[in-house]
Parts: sequence; C-alpha cells; structure tokens
Amino acid sequence: MTGLAPHLSDESLTAIAVERTGSVTTPKGFRAAGLAVGIKASGNPDLALVVNDGPLQDAAAVFTSNRIFAAPVQWSRDASADGVLKAVVLNSGGANACTGKDGLADSAKTAVQVASGLDCAVGDVAVCSTGLIGVRLPMEALLSGVDQAVGQLSPQGGPNAAQAIMTTDTVRKMASYTSPDGWSIGGIAKGAGMLAPALATMLVVLTTDADVKPLALDTALKQATSVSFDRVDSDGCQSTNDSVILMSSGASGYAPDPREFATALAAVCRDLGLQLLADAEGAAHDIAITVKGAASLDDALEVARSIARNNLFKCAIFGNDPNWGRVLAAAGTTKAAFEVENLDVFFNGVGVYRQGAIGEDRSLVDLSARQVEVVMDLHHGAHQATVWTNDLTYDYVKENAEYSS
Amino acid sequence: MTGLAPHLSDESLTAIAVERTGSVTTPKGFRAAGLAVGIKASGNPDLALVVNDGPLQDAAAVFTSNRIFAAPVQWSRDASADGVLKAVVLNSGGANACTGKDGLADSAKTAVQVASGLDCAVGDVAVCSTGLIGVRLPMEALLSGVDQAVGQLSPQGGPNAAQAIMTTDTVRKMASYTSPDGWSIGGIAKGAGMLAPALATMLVVLTTDADVKPLALDTALKQATSVSFDRVDSDGCQSTNDSVILMSSGASGYAPDPREFATALAAVCRDLGLQLLADAEGAAHDIAITVKGAASLDDALEVARSIARNNLFKCAIFGNDPNWGRVLAAAGTTKAAFEVENLDVFFNGVGVYRQGAIGEDRSLVDLSARQVEVVMDLHHGAHQATVWTNDLTYDYVKENAEYSS
Repeated sequence: MTGLAPHLSDESLTAIAVERTGSVTTPKGFRAAGLAVGIKASGNPDLALVVNDGPLQDAAAVFTSNRIFAAPVQWSRDASADGVLKAVVLNSGGANACTGKDGLADSAKTAVQVASGLDCAVGDVAVCSTGLIGVRLPMEALLSGVDQAVGQLSPQGGPNAAQAIMTTDTVRKMASYTSPDGWSIGGIAKGAGMLAPALATMLVVLTTDADVKPLALDTALKQATSVSFDRVDSDGCQSTNDSVILMSSGASGYAPDPREFATALAAVCRDLGLQLLADAEGAAHDIAITVKGAASLDDALEVARSIARNNLFKCAIFGNDPNWGRVLAAAGTTKAAFEVENLDVFFNGVGVYRQGAIGEDRSLVDLSARQVEVVMDLHHGAHQATVWTNDLTYDYVKENAEYSS
Repeated sequence: MTGLAPHLSDESLTAIAVERTGSVTTPKGFRAAGLAVGIKASGNPDLALVVNDGPLQDAAAVFTSNRIFAAPVQWSRDASADGVLKAVVLNSGGANACTGKDGLADSAKTAVQVASGLDCAVGDVAVCSTGLIGVRLPMEALLSGVDQAVGQLSPQGGPNAAQAIMTTDTVRKMASYTSPDGWSIGGIAKGAGMLAPALATMLVVLTTDADVKPLALDTALKQATSVSFDRVDSDGCQSTNDSVILMSSGASGYAPDPREFATALAAVCRDLGLQLLADAEGAAHDIAITVKGAASLDDALEVARSIARNNLFKCAIFGNDPNWGRVLAAAGTTKAAFEVENLDVFFNGVGVYRQGAIGEDRSLVDLSARQVEVVMDLHHGAHQATVWTNDLTYDYVKENAEYSS
C-alpha cells in the first residue's frame, strides 16, 4: 500500500456531517435494548442487544489481530464469516477471555438464547464481551437477561445499548450520518481511549439501512477501520476482545455509490475513534500527529506511529514540553525515506525545527489546551497520514497499576 | 539467527566473577581522568578522558542505530572505523545533538585538543557527549578542560572518569573482571536506566590489556552488546548519542582464547547493563523477563521484548499486580511459534497460567521486592532469552514530563 483512495482522504472525511445524537437505531430496520441484568456487581447496565429486522441481513466484521483472542471473538468470527448476521448481543462486566473451552461454550449458549428469543439461526448471532480477563461469566444472570433484552427491543433502543456496554467509559459513545438521499449509518462504541484500555477492549456496532452489496460492505468496513480505529494509536497493545461489527438492513431501499457509502462509514468510525480518545481517563492531552511529505502512505504511518508510541514524547506532552528532540529521535528509528537535513517539526503550528536545524523559539508553543497538533514534514514525497494518541500521565499509570485483570 | 554460541549462554556469563570496584584503569596500560571544567552549571564533574598507552591500540565500537545521531557519534564512528584508538574524551552537560555542521566542528575541535595534548593523531581520538539535545557546547571551557584532563591522567583515574560522565545517574557505574591468567577487562558506564533516559544517552567505555586480534575484538564487542545492553529493553527508544567503545592495550602480554575473552567481556557488559537498570530513577521494580521453550532465539527475544515494551504490563508490575492477562496479550501480538493451549506463565516462580488455563492462585505471588522474575514457557522448542526492563511509575512520568530537552 503506497496511497489512499481519494474518497478516504482527510478532506473527504471531514466534509461528512457526523452527529453524536444518533446511534445504531437511527437507520431503519433496527431495534436495540440495553439494561442491567446482574453481570456487574455495581448494578449498572451490562447487557445490550442490537437486532436487524431486514429486509437484508448482510454483515461484515473485523476483530483483534491478537493471537490470544477471547471466546466471543472466536464465536463471532465464525458467525459473521458468511456475511449474514441477524443480531449482536454484547455484555460488559466480563471479557470471557482466557477461559478455555468452557468460555467458548458460554458464548455459544448466549447465542442460542438470543436465537431462541428471536426465532433465528444461532449462526446468525454475534457475541461480544468486555470486562475482566480470566473470569467466567455469570451465565444464569446473562441468559435470563437475554430474554429480558428481547422483550425490551425498541427502534429507539440505541442509546440504552450504548450505555450498557460501558466499562471504565465516563460517557457513552454514539455517532450517525444521514444522507440527503434517505439512507443512514449509525454506531455505538465502547472503550476508554485506546491509550488506557483498562478493561482492554474496544467494541463497536455499526448499522445501516443502505442497500449495499455484501462485498462492498466488507470492503467499506476494512477501509473505514484502516483510517479510523487503526489510527487511534497508543502503545500498540491490542486487546483480546476488540470487535467491530457492521450490519445492513437495506430498509431505506436506496443503494448509494459504494465509494460514497465507504466515505460516510469511515467518517462515522473516525468520529467514534476520536470519542474513545477523548474519554481516555488518564489522559490530559489528545494528540494528532500528522506526517506529511512522505514517499508513501506506509512511510507516513510508520513515522507517525513511531512518534505516537514513544513514551518519552508522551511524557513530554503531559509536561507541556514541545520536545522536538524526542520527535526526531522517534522518527530516526524508522526506515522511512527522508534526509535528516530536510526535516521540519511543528508543535501547534510553531516550526520549532526547520530544515534540519533549530527553528522558532520553543517558548512560542502553548501546549496548555487538551488538543495538541504535531506535524512532521519529511519533504520526500506527496503522501500524508494522521495518527491520534494521548499523553502519558500519572493517572494513566495509576489507573493501570491499580486495575487487576 | 536462531541460536546463541554456548560461550554466551546465561550459564557461561553468570560463572564469570565481575567486580564493581574496578574500572577502565584496572587493565594495565590505561590512564584516565575525570574533573569539573565548567560545562555543567552545577559545577559537578563533567569531563572524562581515557587514554590507551599501549603497546597495542586496537579498538572496536558500536553506536546508536538511530538515524538521527549526534555529532560526536558521527565523529567517533569515523575515528574508530580503522580499529585504532588512542583515547576517548567524554563530556556530560551537553549532548551536541541536532546541532548541525557547527556541532560536528565542535567534536572535531575537541579531538584536535586531545590529540595535541597527547601528541597522537586526531583520527585516533573518539568523542562522546551526553546531556541536552539541541544546544551547543561551551567550547572554551571544554577545550581548556581537555588540557587540564591531560595533566591529571592517572593509572588510578578510572573512578573519577566514571563520576564525570554522570547526568541523572545517582551512582557511578564501574565493573571489571580479572582473569587468573593475568589479563583483565574494565568498564565505566553512564545512564539512569534505559527506561528513563531523561538525558537520552547510554555511554560505555571498556578497556582490556588482553592481547586480542582486532577482528576478535570487534566480534567480541558485538556479541557482548547483543546479550547485555541490547537486552536491557525499555520503550525501544534509542537515543541520539548511545556509544560503546572498547580499547585494547595488550599490556598483559597474554592472548586469551577468543571465546574466553568474549564471555568475560559479555559478563562485564551485562553487569554494567544491570547497573543502568537498577539506577532507573523513576522505577520501583527491576523486571527480568525470560522466554523459554522457544523454537528459535529470535522467537524468544521477540516475545520477551513485546512483554517488556507493554505499558499495561509495566503499570501492573508497579501496582504489584501479577497480571498474566497482559503478558498473554503481549505475546499474542508476536509472530513467534507457539500454541495458545500450551503456554505457561510464572511470576516469581508461581505458575499463574498453566497449559493455557488459569493456574495457581495469583494471591500467592509477592511482588513487593524490587526484583521481579517473569517466565513464559512457549513449549515449542529449546531456545530461551532474558530481557530486562523496569516498571512504569509515577516517577517515570514525572521525570520525563518535567525534563526539557
């Protein structure tokens, strides 16, 4: 990969008007529920169900690439492999990861209960879990909870579903886009920043009532995640449970141009990704790292990720320190094409390092706001990419030191 | 690389008796000095000189692989390329990095001053610097300091040299090995843990009076760094100034077996590496991560490094939390050969995860001591490797947030 299709460029995506009031029930043909069934000791909502009433039941999904993956990931990968899903059931309060064959059986039993309640095939039910690793789920509460959820399904249930998948999240995450042509995309997400995955999971459910061919659905989802969730970078830690599931009902009766659909889906995903970032509990800054002038998209991404994963750089941002030496040192560990004497580094628009030499006075940089923009220009080509991350803070350490998996 | 020569195995290295009282002047044929010349505002010692009086003047060196490297690295790489060095001059209080052509000229002037004082070729003088990036060195103080250092050279000067290269270090680092056959190896090092390179540099000078052929010297140094400094892992951040320089005087008149020499050199380097780790100011734990049962040495190292670089794991250790889920999740991101259902994980000897399932009670693990041992058995081969790291703490963040490069 050396380039990005124009319909996925930063310009194309920012032109899409994404709203944060809509959710998975914004598109026609979907019902959802979210409620407390006793999985969490706190009594907070812990079970969500999203159902596609059709007429189409096309689906696509992407999962964690971690080789150590949870039982629900194994189940849902199989269930979605044929591109057909009727429903997704999600629980917080337990990840059902590293639980062996018994854990896989628990995911299967959950799907069976949903299929029974909806009168559909068990292989058309995806299962997602988030919470503690290495602990079995309270199946009695979960299964009777599934029946309750089926009873509470509603075309207005999306926000409740968004609420029920929260763990360390302080706010629920929802996003939607409605086309002037009458079709829409909606989504809910769970995750307290990729940077502080204390409960180690990002779960996303997306819905649409556009009439999109299964192959185009799959392509659009892969493209969308590549420019959204994959770019909300952190320490590169991928969890055991990460899942992104997209279902299409076709209920709008409108078949948009595949590229138009892909652009809108990517914009919704990027908005959800930035909501995850903004809710990273331990973080004091949201950092956008843009590498431009790269010989290829891969080069731009490699340099941006290298900076985003550099702990020294992330600590410096926490200290409001425009430490360009650390940006350079991170870039220097990559194989990207550039000449050292041509590099520029900008912090919030101030060129602190220009053409390979000390640039404007670093005291001109104000890093007191939460949003920080770091730009590195390699002056070696026409490609660019942005990666988002958070700073490394006392609270990040505290949250992840005191959390026990 | 799939295996390690037997003379570099953990067993071979731990059999070598390394002392921490000797230094670069323990081997015969070396003089050194360390003193305050006014580079540091604090008035602390900031200039060191190590001179090889021969009869041999063989040398080998390894430098940072970061593409953004400091002027002294560029200078010393050239100076050592022919395998001959008469002296190494080192300053703290300024890294002379990202300082452009003027900075390179400063390194050259420093070498010229040393060569003039010692009456040797300027191309036989290596230069090392550590301190702030992006700031020029106070050359007047430095050059007159060189003359003072030449005047203070002494066969007992090693400890002073070790003192003068400290930056955020709380203790000076020295190590030596003396063979029953009458030859010895000595070393000094600078670095407050690889984990907290607030001044972003590890400098090491090694000396020996063994009669070792230049090629064997080079091979031994590369092998030694590969099993010592390269395994003191952290965030993978390599600095702009890292340098390890080895000089041989041959003054003992004894030519040891090359493998015997390489083993002793590796043991001295490993001891210095562990001293760097123990002095990581922000750290509360020193963590040894051993991966065994690997199909190759590369597999063992890939998994061990992946664990060592995982921020969530490092926060958990700070919180005295034997979080095996994070160890597994880190291993799951690698390409190493293993089957998930065969994995074992031990924290300080307690098998918290056995044969792919929850093992002994995690409450049996006591992580209150500074030394922590994590072992992962892949059960897929006969290779093993250990990587050392520190935990991620409030103080690490503090030190690196408040430091300004």
